[in-house]
Parts: sequence; structure tokens; C-alpha cells
Amino acid sequence: MSAQNGKYDKSKNNGNENGKSTVILKNPHLNHLDEDILYHLALGTGSHDLEKMFGDIKFVCMGGTANRMETFAKYMLSVLDIQLPTGTALYDMIQSSHRYAMYKVGPVLCVNHGMGVPSLSILLNEIMKLLHYAGVHDPVLFRIGTSGGIGVEPGTVIISKKAVDGLCREVHEMYNLGKIEHRPTMLDQNLAKEIQQMTKNTDPFQTVLGTTMCAHDFYEGQGRLDGAFCTYTETDKAQFLRKLYDNGVRNIEMESTVFSAFTHHANVRAAIVNVTLLDRLQGDQIRSSKQQLLEYQDRPQIIVARYIKKCLMQS
Amino acid sequence: MSAQNGKYDKSKNNGNENGKSTVILKNPHLNHLDEDILYHLALGTGSHDLEKMFGDIKFVCMGGTANRMETFAKYMLSVLDIQLPTGTALYDMIQSSHRYAMYKVGPVLCVNHGMGVPSLSILLNEIMKLLHYAGVHDPVLFRIGTSGGIGVEPGTVIISKKAVDGLCREVHEMYNLGKIEHRPTMLDQNLAKEIQQMTKNTDPFQTVLGTTMCAHDFYEGQGRLDGAFCTYTETDKAQFLRKLYDNGVRNIEMESTVFSAFTHHANVRAAIVNVTLLDRLQGDQIRSSKQQLLEYQDRPQIIVARYIKKCLMQS
Repeated sequence: MSAQNGKYDKSKNNGNENGKSTVILKNPHLNHLDEDILYHLALGTGSHDLEKMFGDIKFVCMGGTANRMETFAKYMLSVLDIQLPTGTALYDMIQSSHRYAMYKVGPVLCVNHGMGVPSLSILLNEIMKLLHYAGVHDPVLFRIGTSGGIGVEPGTVIISKKAVDGLCREVHEMYNLGKIEHRPTMLDQNLAKEIQQMTKNTDPFQTVLGTTMCAHDFYEGQGRLDGAFCTYTETDKAQFLRKLYDNGVRNIEMESTVFSAFTHHANVRAAIVNVTLLDRLQGDQIRSSKQQLLEYQDRPQIIVARYIKKCLMQS
Repeated sequence: MSAQNGKYDKSKNNGNENGKSTVILKNPHLNHLDEDILYHLALGTGSHDLEKMFGDIKFVCMGGTANRMETFAKYMLSVLDIQLPTGTALYDMIQSSHRYAMYKVGPVLCVNHGMGVPSLSILLNEIMKLLHYAGVHDPVLFRIGTSGGIGVEPGTVIISKKAVDGLCREVHEMYNLGKIEHRPTMLDQNLAKEIQQMTKNTDPFQTVLGTTMCAHDFYEGQGRLDGAFCTYTETDKAQFLRKLYDNGVRNIEMESTVFSAFTHHANVRAAIVNVTLLDRLQGDQIRSSKQQLLEYQDRPQIIVARYIKKCLMQS
């Protein structure tokens, strides 16, 4: 255990690679911190015994809304047949942060990331530090979410082979100290295939491996015609979406570049599993019923839960 | 009234500028929509009578967390001395969206925007359309939030004169249909000064007009040394922050470019009022007590509430 009286023993973090975790924090400055406050998670190495609390984590599942991750946590409880001690229930363990909601179901951490790259970026920084300080070995991270489809039936589950930005580059672009930095958006191809194999013939939906485009906006950034502003024509839009399709893009969402770049940089296996809520080649507005959308939303959860259960049964 | 049986009469939206609202939607495609679904607000022109519900709005106040905007809504209720009908209470009117939380206090709409440019971008698209469809005249929009200070005492309130991005450009950068587009980040200088005049000699804090830098991340994007990764030295960081200070930057947050560019593009007066939680020239981690942070957080709310009350008393 790398903590005494809830204090993090920074000597164990020496050079990061020598620590007990395979999650690599490429930041030598962390060795000089007396304590590290994970501000948006309302946790810290000085105030919490992170190894005791989180050392058993094997999977981290992230999705947009707090509500959806609560649903997923409860679902995992039943899938893994975990019996909570009498008189206890799952609860949002970082509710005092007011930023994210986080649930722990045995070895599965379920946390929401809000919308867009910056919101997920904050969470990823703090989750990577959490996993590292907790001494977690070889975790698998998932983003399970919703997206707009391109040329696929609404309700199709897309497992990302690649993540590209709005200029179709396989990079996560950052502005660090006034300079542009690019980090490659790499995903584990074997993991993506293994997850696709979780599909059953009886599933009422298709599972597709494809490229995912990450936009910084829901409207103009995704080529929609129905935002507050629009400078292009319907023909321009159709040509753009067709070009994306021809380049293998099957869905557009708002977090995949930072998710893939960040996990790759930290030496963590990761997968992005999104359901499509509409086919953008057919229109811009989401018109499915609330009931249908809820059913669609469950699909990435079902696939990922099957994968987690399989891994845990094999271990 | 531009709605019948809760249906939006799109003939009134002809060319946008001819409508009843001064909020300009620069998007000719909207005239061809039968109904416009404001998906993330769980509202729509076909399902709601937006003019009846929101036609009296004069101010829209936006901030990061749902919790803070609920606090602000309750505070405005007391500042404006609004008596709700017996047996009623404020409630989050878009809670079914699970994306944002929104409260209406007489002519003041209070809504949270999450963290980062993309999350606020979605909200701004839909708020602008809401204000337009509701026929709102000359609204004033505020972002009231928290930020990291540069060379100012923690707890100082910064009213933004300018918003710059991580490369110190006065633009909001977008990727539209695979091409880079820049929109200028303009703010109303008179409004900023009027808001600063709301400060009282007895206030236990300073109010400063300054430039605000908008980052896409809390860690490397803001020159912090305590993220999961860091590629620069303490000296590089100190030089960068000093350069920002010399260029008039007094705080760093994560939403100001899109907020200023979007409101300017829609012909709406807007102001950004942030409190600083720390002085980045002194360190990276937020170490103030929870109690002190809560007190700091109230300060932009106090200043903006005074401005709103003054305007309403004059009208």
C-alpha cells in the first residue's frame, strides 16, 4: 500500500514507471508535489487513501450525462451480480464536486464527462492520476456514448477504429504555452475487434467498426443546417458528409480525439463505443421518440457490459 | 404572438431580421423547418409556446455548474423580491434533457453551461434560437464563473474587456465543413464599464477590467505543471504567464471565446464576469478552503445581480 494515514507516499511515484501502476504519468513535476489535489473529482492524495479506495479498478467507463452513467452503474451491478452489503446503495461519490458524477461497481468505475473535448480533458487528467496513484494495473477505459451516424441505420453501434478531428487529422490538437501541440489519436485495434465480437446474432442492431469524427460543436462543427448560424448551403453540407463517408467516417461525436490521444499517451488500452441517434445523410434533427432514444442509448452499455463480464470471468 | 396552439409561425421568422426579436439568427435554412427542436434544452417550436414561456426574458445568466445556477436563481428571487404564487417553487425546467439545468426568475433566465467551449457552444446555439423564437428584444447575456487569476489577489472579480484564445488571438476558431473559420471575440466595452461601476467601496474584493484567456483544458492548456502530462519546465511556464500578464491578461477560463464571438455574431450585448480562485503566478493547485471558494463564487453573482436590479428599476 502506497499510503499511510491516507497520505500518498510520493517516493513510490519516483519516475512514474517504477511505481506500481502501468498507467504512465508523463510529468516529472508531480514528484515534487507534497499532495496532489484532484480538484474536479473532490479527491486528493493527502485527503484520501486512493489505493485502498480505487486499487481494485479494472475498467473505467465514461459517458456524457450523469444520468446515463448512473443507469450504467446500476446495470453493471446486475450484470456482475454484485450484492451490496445490506443497507447500502450505490451513490455518486464525487457529488460535492458539482462537476462530474462517479459511481464504483466493484472493479468498474462509471463516471460522466460532460460534453466536448475540454470537459473530458479535465476528467481524463484527473482519472489518469487517480489510476496511477491507486496503483492500478492494465486498466481498460471505455467511452460509451451517443453520436450522429453517417450512412448507417439509426441505432447502429459504432466501435471506433480511428478518431479524427474536424479537419480529418488523426490528432488531438492542444495549445500549450501559446504553441500548438498535436498528440496522435491511437486506439487499440485488437480491443475494438474483441468488443465487436460481443455482438450476438439475436441483437436488434448492427455493430460496425469505423472512423469517428470529433467535432467541437453540435451544429456548424458537425455540418448541421439547423444551428443559430450557418454559412454554407445544403449542397456544401451533403458533399462534406459524403466525403466523410468515403473516408470511412461512420459517426460524429464530440470527445473521441482527446479520449484516444490521452489514453494512448498514458499507455492505457481504450475503446470508443457510440450508438448513432440518426443518419446525418437523411437530416439534422433528432426525431426519434424519447423511448427509442433510451433504447438506443442502452446498446453501447450492453456491448461493453458483455465484454467486462467476459474478462472478469476469465481472470 | 408568433405561436398558435404552441406551434411556431415560421412566417414571422422570415429573413430573421424582420421578426420581432433583435436576436439575429444568421441562418436562412431555419425558415424551411416545420418545427425547430432545441434538443439539449428539451424544448421546441412545435411542442412549446416559446413566446408565451420566454417572451419576457431580459437577462440570461450562464455559469458552469447546475448547482451554482440554482443558487443564483434563488438569490435573484430575493434580490428582485419576486413572490412566487403560493405552493410553487423554482424548478429546473429542462431537467429531462440531462444536459443543462435552467431556472426562470421573472425576466432572468439562469442556465448552466458545463465546462469548455463545445459545451457552451451547444447551449448558445439553442439559447439564441430560444430568444429569437420568443421574440425577445435587446437581451443582455452574462457568463458568471470562476477562473484562474494572473497577478491579482485570489477572490478578485475580473470583468472581461477582451477574450483571447490559447494562441492569444481575439477569435473563436471553428472547423466548419473541414475548413477553419474564425469569428471575432467582441465584447460591449460600455457594458463592461457599467458593470464595474456596480462595485461598492464596502465590498471586500477588487473588481478589475482585463483580458481573459480561454483555454481548452484545465492543465497543460492553462500552463499548469500538475496535470497527468507536462512537457515544459517551471521556467517556461513562468515566462508564459508573465507574457500573458504583460499583454493585459488577468485571468484564464474555458468559455470566453465562444461566449463573446457568439453573442457578438447574434447582435446581443454580453459580459463575462469571473472571480479568480487563485493567483497562477503563485502556484497551480487551488488550496483555498471550501468555505472561501463558496464566498468567492458568490462575488460575480453579487455584481451581476446589482446590475440587473438597477436596469429593472430604471425600466
